[in-house]
Amino acid sequence: MKREKAMVLFSGGVDSTTCLAMAIERFGKENVIPLSIHYGQKHEKELEAAKNILKHYEIDGMVMDLTPVFAESNCSLLQGSTEEIPESSYMEQLQESDGNPVSTYVPFRNGLFLSTASSIALSKECSYIYYGAHVDDAAGNAYPDCSETFFNAMKEAIYEGSGKAIKIEAPFIRKNKAEIVKEGLRLGVPYELTWSCYEGKEKPCGNCATCIDREKAFVENGMVDPSL
Amino acid sequence: MKREKAMVLFSGGVDSTTCLAMAIERFGKENVIPLSIHYGQKHEKELEAAKNILKHYEIDGMVMDLTPVFAESNCSLLQGSTEEIPESSYMEQLQESDGNPVSTYVPFRNGLFLSTASSIALSKECSYIYYGAHVDDAAGNAYPDCSETFFNAMKEAIYEGSGKAIKIEAPFIRKNKAEIVKEGLRLGVPYELTWSCYEGKEKPCGNCATCIDREKAFVENGMVDPSL
Repeated sequence: MKREKAMVLFSGGVDSTTCLAMAIERFGKENVIPLSIHYGQKHEKELEAAKNILKHYEIDGMVMDLTPVFAESNCSLLQGSTEEIPESSYMEQLQESDGNPVSTYVPFRNGLFLSTASSIALSKECSYIYYGAHVDDAAGNAYPDCSETFFNAMKEAIYEGSGKAIKIEAPFIRKNKAEIVKEGLRLGVPYELTWSCYEGKEKPCGNCATCIDREKAFVENGMVDPSL
Repeated sequence: MKREKAMVLFSGGVDSTTCLAMAIERFGKENVIPLSIHYGQKHEKELEAAKNILKHYEIDGMVMDLTPVFAESNCSLLQGSTEEIPESSYMEQLQESDGNPVSTYVPFRNGLFLSTASSIALSKECSYIYYGAHVDDAAGNAYPDCSETFFNAMKEAIYEGSGKAIKIEAPFIRKNKAEIVKEGLRLGVPYELTWSCYEGKEKPCGNCATCIDREKAFVENGMVDPSL
Protein backbone atom coordinates (compact mmCIF):
# COMPACT_ATOMS: atom_id res chain seq x y z
CA MET A 1 0.00 0.00 0.00
CA LYS A 2 1.22 3.47 -0.95
CA ARG A 3 1.99 5.56 2.14
CA GLU A 4 0.20 8.86 2.52
CA LYS A 5 2.02 12.18 2.25
CA ALA A 6 1.97 15.22 4.55
CA MET A 7 2.81 18.89 4.09
CA VAL A 8 4.13 20.78 7.14
CA LEU A 9 3.83 24.56 7.58
CA PHE A 10 7.41 25.04 8.66
CA SER A 11 8.86 28.32 9.94
CA GLY A 12 11.97 27.03 11.68
CA GLY A 13 10.63 27.80 15.18
CA VAL A 14 9.96 25.50 18.13
CA ASP A 15 6.32 24.64 17.30
CA SER A 16 6.60 23.91 13.59
CA THR A 17 9.89 22.04 13.97
CA THR A 18 8.22 19.77 16.50
CA CYS A 19 5.34 19.31 14.00
CA LEU A 20 7.90 18.37 11.37
CA ALA A 21 9.43 15.74 13.64
CA MET A 22 5.98 14.29 14.36
CA ALA A 23 5.11 14.12 10.66
CA ILE A 24 8.43 12.44 9.88
CA GLU A 25 7.82 9.89 12.64
CA ARG A 26 4.32 9.11 11.30
CA PHE A 27 4.81 9.20 7.51
CA GLY A 28 8.54 8.69 6.97
CA LYS A 29 10.72 11.56 5.79
CA GLU A 30 10.34 10.64 2.09
CA ASN A 31 6.62 11.42 2.46
CA VAL A 32 6.91 14.79 4.19
CA ILE A 33 7.03 18.16 2.37
CA PRO A 34 7.91 21.16 4.56
CA LEU A 35 6.60 24.51 3.28
CA SER A 36 8.30 27.73 4.46
CA ILE A 37 6.84 31.14 3.72
CA HIS A 38 8.34 34.59 3.26
CA TYR A 39 5.77 37.21 4.20
CA GLY A 40 7.91 40.26 4.88
CA GLN A 41 8.63 39.25 8.50
CA LYS A 42 11.40 41.19 10.27
CA HIS A 43 12.72 37.82 11.42
CA GLU A 44 13.36 36.33 7.97
CA LYS A 45 16.28 34.77 9.79
CA GLU A 46 13.83 32.04 10.85
CA LEU A 47 13.97 30.76 7.27
CA GLU A 48 17.75 30.30 7.54
CA ALA A 49 17.09 28.26 10.67
CA ALA A 50 14.50 26.29 8.66
CA LYS A 51 17.13 25.44 6.04
CA ASN A 52 19.57 24.21 8.67
CA ILE A 53 16.90 22.02 10.24
CA LEU A 54 16.07 20.50 6.85
CA LYS A 55 19.79 19.71 6.42
CA HIS A 56 19.71 17.99 9.81
CA TYR A 57 16.78 15.83 8.70
CA GLU A 58 18.18 15.44 5.17
CA ILE A 59 14.97 16.47 3.41
CA ASP A 60 14.07 19.13 0.86
CA GLY A 61 11.47 21.80 1.46
CA MET A 62 9.43 24.25 -0.58
CA VAL A 63 9.52 28.02 -0.19
CA MET A 64 6.74 30.45 -1.16
CA ASP A 65 6.80 34.24 -1.11
CA LEU A 66 3.54 35.88 0.00
CA THR A 67 5.06 39.26 0.91
CA PRO A 68 2.87 41.25 -1.56
CA VAL A 69 -0.31 40.17 0.28
CA PHE A 70 0.82 42.12 3.37
CA ALA A 71 2.12 45.18 1.51
CA GLU A 72 -0.60 47.39 3.01
CA SER A 73 -0.29 46.11 6.58
CA ASN A 74 1.44 48.10 9.32
CA CYS A 75 1.75 45.10 11.67
CA SER A 76 4.81 45.53 13.90
CA LEU A 77 6.15 42.12 12.90
CA LEU A 78 6.65 43.25 9.30
CA GLN A 79 9.57 45.01 7.65
CA GLY A 80 8.67 48.58 6.80
CA SER A 81 6.20 48.88 9.70
CA THR A 82 6.27 52.15 11.62
CA GLU A 83 5.55 50.15 14.81
CA GLU A 84 8.13 48.63 17.14
CA ILE A 85 7.84 45.04 18.36
CA PRO A 86 6.68 45.29 22.02
CA GLU A 87 9.16 44.29 24.71
CA SER A 88 6.65 42.56 26.97
CA SER A 89 4.84 39.25 27.38
CA TYR A 90 1.56 38.48 25.58
CA MET A 91 -0.31 38.71 28.89
CA GLU A 92 1.01 42.23 29.50
CA GLN A 93 0.18 43.23 25.93
CA LEU A 94 -3.35 41.87 26.19
CA GLN A 95 -4.01 43.95 29.29
CA GLU A 96 -3.27 47.01 27.16
CA SER A 97 -5.04 45.92 23.96
CA ASP A 98 -8.53 45.73 25.49
CA GLY A 99 -9.28 42.29 24.02
CA ASN A 100 -7.99 43.12 20.53
CA PRO A 101 -5.26 41.07 18.81
CA VAL A 102 -1.67 42.01 19.76
CA SER A 103 0.37 44.30 17.49
CA THR A 104 2.34 41.33 16.14
CA TYR A 105 -0.88 39.73 14.77
CA VAL A 106 -0.29 39.53 11.00
CA PRO A 107 -3.72 39.90 9.34
CA PHE A 108 -5.29 36.44 8.86
CA ARG A 109 -1.80 35.04 8.30
CA ASN A 110 -2.52 31.49 9.41
CA GLY A 111 -5.68 31.30 7.29
CA LEU A 112 -3.68 32.44 4.28
CA PHE A 113 -0.85 30.00 5.04
CA LEU A 114 -3.21 27.06 5.52
CA SER A 115 -5.01 27.91 2.26
CA THR A 116 -1.73 28.21 0.38
CA ALA A 117 -0.57 24.90 1.83
CA SER A 118 -3.89 23.32 0.79
CA SER A 119 -3.55 24.46 -2.82
CA ILE A 120 0.00 23.13 -3.02
CA ALA A 121 -0.79 19.96 -1.06
CA LEU A 122 -3.49 19.06 -3.61
CA SER A 123 -1.00 19.54 -6.45
CA LYS A 124 1.58 17.38 -4.64
CA GLU A 125 -0.95 14.72 -3.60
CA CYS A 126 -0.57 15.22 0.14
CA SER A 127 -3.51 14.15 2.34
CA TYR A 128 -2.43 15.96 5.52
CA ILE A 129 -1.23 19.40 6.51
CA TYR A 130 0.50 19.95 9.87
CA TYR A 131 0.00 23.26 11.63
CA GLY A 132 1.70 24.21 14.93
CA ALA A 133 -0.81 26.59 16.59
CA HIS A 134 -0.97 26.21 20.38
CA VAL A 135 -2.87 27.42 23.42
CA ASP A 136 -0.42 30.14 24.54
CA ASP A 137 -0.72 32.00 21.23
CA ALA A 138 -4.52 31.79 21.23
CA ALA A 139 -4.96 32.88 24.87
CA GLY A 140 -7.00 36.02 25.37
CA ASN A 141 -7.45 36.51 21.61
CA ALA A 142 -3.76 37.50 21.18
CA TYR A 143 -3.71 35.70 17.83
CA PRO A 144 -7.30 34.88 16.80
CA ASP A 145 -5.97 32.75 13.92
CA CYS A 146 -4.41 30.40 16.49
CA SER A 147 -7.67 29.65 18.32
CA GLU A 148 -9.40 26.29 18.41
CA THR A 149 -12.62 27.87 17.08
CA PHE A 150 -10.74 29.21 14.06
CA PHE A 151 -8.97 25.89 13.57
CA ASN A 152 -12.15 23.81 13.65
CA ALA A 153 -13.84 26.02 11.04
CA MET A 154 -10.74 26.19 8.82
CA LYS A 155 -10.25 22.44 9.02
CA GLU A 156 -13.84 21.94 7.84
CA ALA A 157 -13.48 24.57 5.09
CA ILE A 158 -10.33 22.92 3.76
CA TYR A 159 -11.78 19.41 3.95
CA GLU A 160 -14.95 20.44 2.09
CA GLY A 161 -13.31 22.89 -0.32
CA SER A 162 -10.65 20.36 -1.33
CA GLY A 163 -13.25 17.75 -2.24
CA LYS A 164 -12.60 15.92 1.08
CA ALA A 165 -8.97 15.36 0.07
CA ILE A 166 -7.08 17.33 2.76
CA LYS A 167 -7.11 16.93 6.54
CA ILE A 168 -5.47 19.49 8.82
CA GLU A 169 -3.60 18.20 11.86
CA ALA A 170 -2.98 20.66 14.68
CA PRO A 171 -1.43 18.43 17.36
CA PHE A 172 -0.83 21.33 19.80
CA ILE A 173 -4.17 23.12 19.55
CA ARG A 174 -4.83 22.28 23.24
CA LYS A 175 -1.18 22.18 24.38
CA ASN A 176 1.12 24.88 25.71
CA LYS A 177 4.69 25.47 24.59
CA ALA A 178 6.20 23.52 27.50
CA GLU A 179 4.20 20.45 26.42
CA ILE A 180 5.36 20.94 22.83
CA VAL A 181 8.99 20.99 23.96
CA LYS A 182 8.39 17.88 26.04
CA GLU A 183 7.10 16.04 22.95
CA GLY A 184 9.98 17.39 20.85
CA LEU A 185 12.61 16.25 23.34
CA ARG A 186 11.18 12.73 23.09
CA LEU A 187 11.53 12.97 19.29
CA GLY A 188 15.08 14.37 19.44
CA VAL A 189 14.18 17.71 17.83
CA PRO A 190 17.37 19.79 17.25
CA TYR A 191 16.10 22.83 19.16
CA GLU A 192 19.59 24.35 19.06
CA LEU A 193 18.96 25.01 15.34
CA THR A 194 15.52 26.65 15.72
CA TRP A 195 14.80 30.41 15.71
CA SER A 196 11.91 32.21 17.40
CA CYS A 197 12.86 35.84 18.19
CA TYR A 198 10.70 38.38 16.33
CA GLU A 199 13.55 40.89 16.08
CA GLY A 200 15.63 38.72 13.76
CA LYS A 201 18.97 40.19 14.87
CA GLU A 202 22.21 38.28 15.42
CA LYS A 203 21.11 36.79 18.76
CA PRO A 204 17.64 36.37 20.28
CA CYS A 205 16.65 39.64 22.05
CA GLY A 206 15.28 37.87 25.13
CA ASN A 207 12.64 40.60 25.56
CA CYS A 208 9.97 40.02 22.90
CA ALA A 209 6.92 37.92 23.75
CA THR A 210 8.10 34.88 21.82
CA CYS A 211 11.56 34.95 23.46
CA ILE A 212 9.84 35.11 26.87
CA ASP A 213 7.50 32.22 26.00
CA ARG A 214 10.28 30.10 24.62
CA GLU A 215 12.64 30.49 27.56
CA LYS A 216 9.83 29.59 29.97
CA ALA A 217 8.97 26.46 27.98
CA PHE A 218 12.50 25.10 28.34
CA VAL A 219 12.73 26.06 32.03
CA GLU A 220 9.50 24.13 32.65
CA ASN A 221 11.23 21.11 31.11
CA GLY A 222 14.11 21.54 33.57
CA MET A 223 16.65 22.78 31.04
CA VAL A 224 18.21 25.86 29.43
CA ASP A 225 17.14 26.77 25.89
CA PRO A 226 19.83 25.04 23.79
CA SER A 227 19.85 27.86 21.22
CA LEU A 228 21.18 30.37 23.79
CA MET B 1 -21.26 57.81 11.07
CA LYS B 2 -18.41 56.44 8.97
CA ARG B 3 -19.70 54.08 6.26
CA GLU B 4 -18.33 50.57 6.20
CA LYS B 5 -16.06 49.34 3.42
CA ALA B 6 -16.24 46.19 1.30
CA MET B 7 -13.72 44.24 -0.75
CA VAL B 8 -15.02 42.35 -3.80
CA LEU B 9 -13.29 39.31 -5.31
CA PHE B 10 -13.54 40.50 -8.87
CA SER B 11 -12.59 38.46 -11.93
CA GLY B 12 -14.43 40.39 -14.63
CA GLY B 13 -17.00 37.63 -15.21
CA VAL B 14 -20.78 37.64 -14.83
CA ASP B 15 -20.97 36.56 -11.18
CA SER B 16 -18.30 38.80 -9.65
CA THR B 17 -19.33 41.83 -11.72
CA THR B 18 -22.86 41.43 -10.37
CA CYS B 19 -21.36 41.20 -6.85
CA LEU B 20 -19.46 44.41 -7.55
CA ALA B 21 -22.65 46.19 -8.60
CA MET B 22 -24.42 44.98 -5.43
CA ALA B 23 -21.55 46.17 -3.20
CA ILE B 24 -21.53 49.56 -4.93
CA GLU B 25 -25.28 49.87 -4.44
CA ARG B 26 -24.98 49.03 -0.72
CA PHE B 27 -21.78 50.83 0.32
CA GLY B 28 -21.23 53.52 -2.33
CA LYS B 29 -18.42 53.19 -4.86
CA GLU B 30 -15.96 55.17 -2.71
CA ASN B 31 -16.20 52.38 -0.11
CA VAL B 32 -15.69 49.41 -2.44
CA ILE B 33 -12.30 47.85 -3.23
CA PRO B 34 -12.31 45.28 -6.07
CA LEU B 35 -9.51 42.69 -5.90
CA SER B 36 -8.49 40.85 -9.09
CA ILE B 37 -6.11 37.91 -9.04
CA HIS B 38 -3.65 36.49 -11.54
CA TYR B 39 -3.21 32.79 -10.89
CA GLY B 40 -1.83 31.51 -14.18
CA GLN B 41 -5.28 31.14 -15.75
CA LYS B 42 -5.37 30.56 -19.53
CA HIS B 43 -8.09 33.23 -19.66
CA GLU B 44 -6.03 36.09 -18.20
CA LYS B 45 -8.09 38.06 -20.65
CA GLU B 46 -10.75 38.21 -17.92
CA LEU B 47 -8.51 40.71 -16.10
CA GLU B 48 -8.61 43.03 -19.13
CA ALA B 49 -12.38 42.81 -18.93
CA ALA B 50 -12.11 43.61 -15.21
CA LYS B 51 -10.17 46.78 -16.00
CA ASN B 52 -12.77 47.95 -18.52
CA ILE B 53 -15.56 47.34 -16.02
CA LEU B 54 -13.72 49.40 -13.38
CA LYS B 55 -13.43 52.21 -15.93
CA HIS B 56 -17.19 51.96 -16.47
CA TYR B 57 -17.80 52.33 -12.72
CA GLU B 58 -14.98 54.86 -12.34
CA ILE B 59 -13.29 53.07 -9.45
CA ASP B 60 -9.79 51.74 -8.83
CA GLY B 61 -9.04 48.12 -8.05
CA MET B 62 -6.19 46.08 -6.61
CA VAL B 63 -4.37 43.28 -8.41
CA MET B 64 -2.52 40.40 -6.78
CA ASP B 65 -0.40 37.69 -8.43
CA LEU B 66 -0.74 34.23 -6.87
CA THR B 67 0.58 32.30 -9.88
CA PRO B 68 3.49 30.67 -7.96
CA VAL B 69 1.05 28.89 -5.62
CA PHE B 70 -0.27 26.83 -8.55
CA ALA B 71 3.11 26.16 -10.19
CA GLU B 72 2.84 22.44 -9.45
CA SER B 73 -0.77 22.02 -10.56
CA ASN B 74 -1.71 20.44 -13.89
CA CYS B 75 -5.30 21.76 -13.78
CA SER B 76 -6.59 22.24 -17.34
CA LEU B 77 -7.55 25.85 -16.62
CA LEU B 78 -3.91 26.83 -16.12
CA GLN B 79 -1.26 27.91 -18.60
CA GLY B 80 1.36 25.20 -19.04
CA SER B 81 -1.10 22.40 -18.24
CA THR B 82 -0.83 19.31 -20.43
CA GLU B 83 -4.64 18.99 -20.23
CA GLU B 84 -7.13 20.55 -22.63
CA ILE B 85 -10.20 22.43 -21.35
CA PRO B 86 -13.18 20.07 -21.93
CA GLU B 87 -15.71 21.06 -24.60
CA SER B 88 -18.78 19.92 -22.70
CA SER B 89 -21.17 21.09 -19.97
CA TYR B 90 -20.46 20.55 -16.26
CA MET B 91 -23.24 17.94 -16.10
CA GLU B 92 -21.62 15.91 -18.89
CA GLN B 93 -18.21 16.24 -17.25
CA LEU B 94 -19.55 15.11 -13.88
CA GLN B 95 -20.98 11.96 -15.41
CA GLU B 96 -17.45 11.09 -16.47
CA SER B 97 -15.62 12.22 -13.33
CA ASP B 98 -17.33 9.77 -10.96
CA GLY B 99 -18.13 12.41 -8.34
CA ASN B 100 -14.67 14.01 -8.41
CA PRO B 101 -14.15 17.71 -9.13
CA VAL B 102 -14.04 18.66 -12.83
CA SER B 103 -10.68 19.12 -14.58
CA THR B 104 -11.03 22.92 -14.43
CA TYR B 105 -11.14 22.83 -10.59
CA VAL B 106 -8.09 24.87 -9.52
CA PRO B 107 -6.88 23.38 -6.22
CA PHE B 108 -8.59 25.18 -3.30
CA ARG B 109 -8.57 28.35 -5.38
CA ASN B 110 -11.55 30.01 -3.72
CA GLY B 111 -10.24 29.26 -0.22
CA LEU B 112 -6.92 30.84 -1.16
CA PHE B 113 -8.62 33.85 -2.77
CA LEU B 114 -10.91 34.42 0.21
CA SER B 115 -7.95 34.16 2.61
CA THR B 116 -5.90 36.57 0.51
CA ALA B 117 -8.83 38.99 0.38
CA SER B 118 -9.20 38.68 4.18
CA SER B 119 -5.56 39.58 4.83
CA ILE B 120 -5.79 42.60 2.54
CA ALA B 121 -9.26 43.60 3.75
CA LEU B 122 -7.95 43.79 7.34
CA SER B 123 -5.09 46.04 6.21
CA LYS B 124 -7.53 48.27 4.29
CA GLU B 125 -10.13 48.31 7.08
CA CYS B 126 -12.89 46.59 5.10
CA SER B 127 -15.60 44.80 7.09
CA TYR B 128 -17.09 42.77 4.22
CA ILE B 129 -15.84 40.58 1.40
CA TYR B 130 -18.11 39.75 -1.55
CA TYR B 131 -17.73 36.37 -3.23
CA GLY B 132 -19.73 35.27 -6.28
CA ALA B 133 -20.01 31.48 -5.87
CA HIS B 134 -23.34 30.06 -7.05
CA VAL B 135 -25.36 26.86 -7.16
CA ASP B 136 -24.51 25.82 -10.75
CA ASP B 137 -20.77 25.71 -10.01
CA ALA B 138 -21.27 23.74 -6.79
CA ALA B 139 -23.69 21.19 -8.31
CA GLY B 140 -22.55 17.59 -8.13
CA ASN B 141 -19.23 18.57 -6.52
CA ALA B 142 -17.94 20.12 -9.81
CA TYR B 143 -16.20 22.83 -7.76
CA PRO B 144 -16.19 21.83 -4.08
CA ASP B 145 -14.88 25.30 -3.16
CA CYS B 146 -18.16 26.78 -4.44
CA SER B 147 -20.41 24.71 -2.18
CA GLU B 148 -22.55 26.11 0.60
CA THR B 149 -20.90 23.72 3.10
CA PHE B 150 -17.48 25.08 2.19
CA PHE B 151 -18.77 28.64 2.30
CA ASN B 152 -20.33 28.32 5.76
CA ALA B 153 -17.13 26.88 7.23
CA MET B 154 -14.88 29.41 5.47
CA LYS B 155 -17.10 32.29 6.57
CA GLU B 156 -16.78 31.13 10.18
CA ALA B 157 -13.00 30.60 9.86
CA ILE B 158 -12.52 34.10 8.48
CA TYR B 159 -14.81 35.71 11.06
CA GLU B 160 -13.02 33.98 13.95
CA GLY B 161 -9.49 34.17 12.51
CA SER B 162 -9.82 37.89 11.79
CA GLY B 163 -10.81 38.67 15.38
CA LYS B 164 -14.50 38.94 14.32
CA ALA B 165 -13.61 41.81 11.95
CA ILE B 166 -14.52 40.34 8.54
CA LYS B 167 -17.83 39.03 7.26
CA ILE B 168 -18.11 37.17 3.96
CA GLU B 169 -21.14 37.86 1.79
CA ALA B 170 -22.01 35.28 -0.87
CA PRO B 171 -25.30 36.60 -2.24
CA PHE B 172 -25.61 33.86 -4.90
CA ILE B 173 -24.74 30.82 -2.82
CA ARG B 174 -28.30 29.51 -3.36
CA LYS B 175 -28.94 31.14 -6.74
CA ASN B 176 -28.26 29.97 -10.29
CA LYS B 177 -26.64 31.99 -13.03
CA ALA B 178 -29.98 33.03 -14.58
CA GLU B 179 -31.02 34.54 -11.23
CA ILE B 180 -27.68 36.34 -10.98
CA VAL B 181 -28.20 37.87 -14.44
CA LYS B 182 -31.72 38.89 -13.44
CA GLU B 183 -30.36 40.76 -10.42
CA GLY B 184 -27.58 42.29 -12.53
CA LEU B 185 -30.00 43.54 -15.18
CA ARG B 186 -31.91 45.36 -12.43
CA LEU B 187 -28.63 46.97 -11.34
CA GLY B 188 -27.59 47.92 -14.88
CA VAL B 189 -24.48 45.70 -14.92
CA PRO B 190 -22.52 46.26 -18.18
CA TYR B 191 -22.51 42.57 -19.16
CA GLU B 192 -21.22 43.49 -22.62
CA LEU B 193 -17.87 44.22 -20.93
CA THR B 194 -17.60 40.96 -18.95
CA TRP B 195 -15.56 37.89 -19.93
CA SER B 196 -16.21 34.27 -18.96
CA CYS B 197 -14.72 31.88 -21.56
CA TYR B 198 -11.99 29.63 -20.13
CA GLU B 199 -10.08 29.55 -23.42
CA GLY B 200 -9.19 33.26 -23.31
CA LYS B 201 -8.93 33.60 -27.09
CA GLU B 202 -10.13 36.55 -29.16
CA LYS B 203 -13.81 35.60 -28.93
CA PRO B 204 -15.65 33.30 -26.51
CA CYS B 205 -15.34 29.68 -27.74
CA GLY B 206 -19.02 28.88 -27.10
CA ASN B 207 -18.10 25.28 -26.24
CA CYS B 208 -16.52 25.30 -22.77
CA ALA B 209 -18.71 24.74 -19.72
CA THR B 210 -18.73 28.36 -18.66
CA CYS B 211 -19.69 29.57 -22.18
CA ILE B 212 -22.56 27.06 -22.18
CA ASP B 213 -23.72 28.18 -18.70
CA ARG B 214 -23.49 31.83 -19.55
CA GLU B 215 -25.45 31.64 -22.81
CA LYS B 216 -28.21 29.70 -21.05
CA ALA B 217 -28.44 32.29 -18.25
CA PHE B 218 -29.14 35.09 -20.73
CA VAL B 219 -31.61 32.99 -22.77
CA GLU B 220 -33.53 32.29 -19.54
CA ASN B 221 -33.79 36.04 -19.09
CA GLY B 222 -35.25 36.34 -22.59
CA MET B 223 -32.22 37.94 -24.21
CA VAL B 224 -29.04 37.30 -26.16
CA ASP B 225 -25.72 37.52 -24.29
CA PRO B 226 -24.69 41.15 -24.95
CA SER B 227 -20.99 40.23 -25.14
CA LEU B 228 -21.56 38.12 -28.30
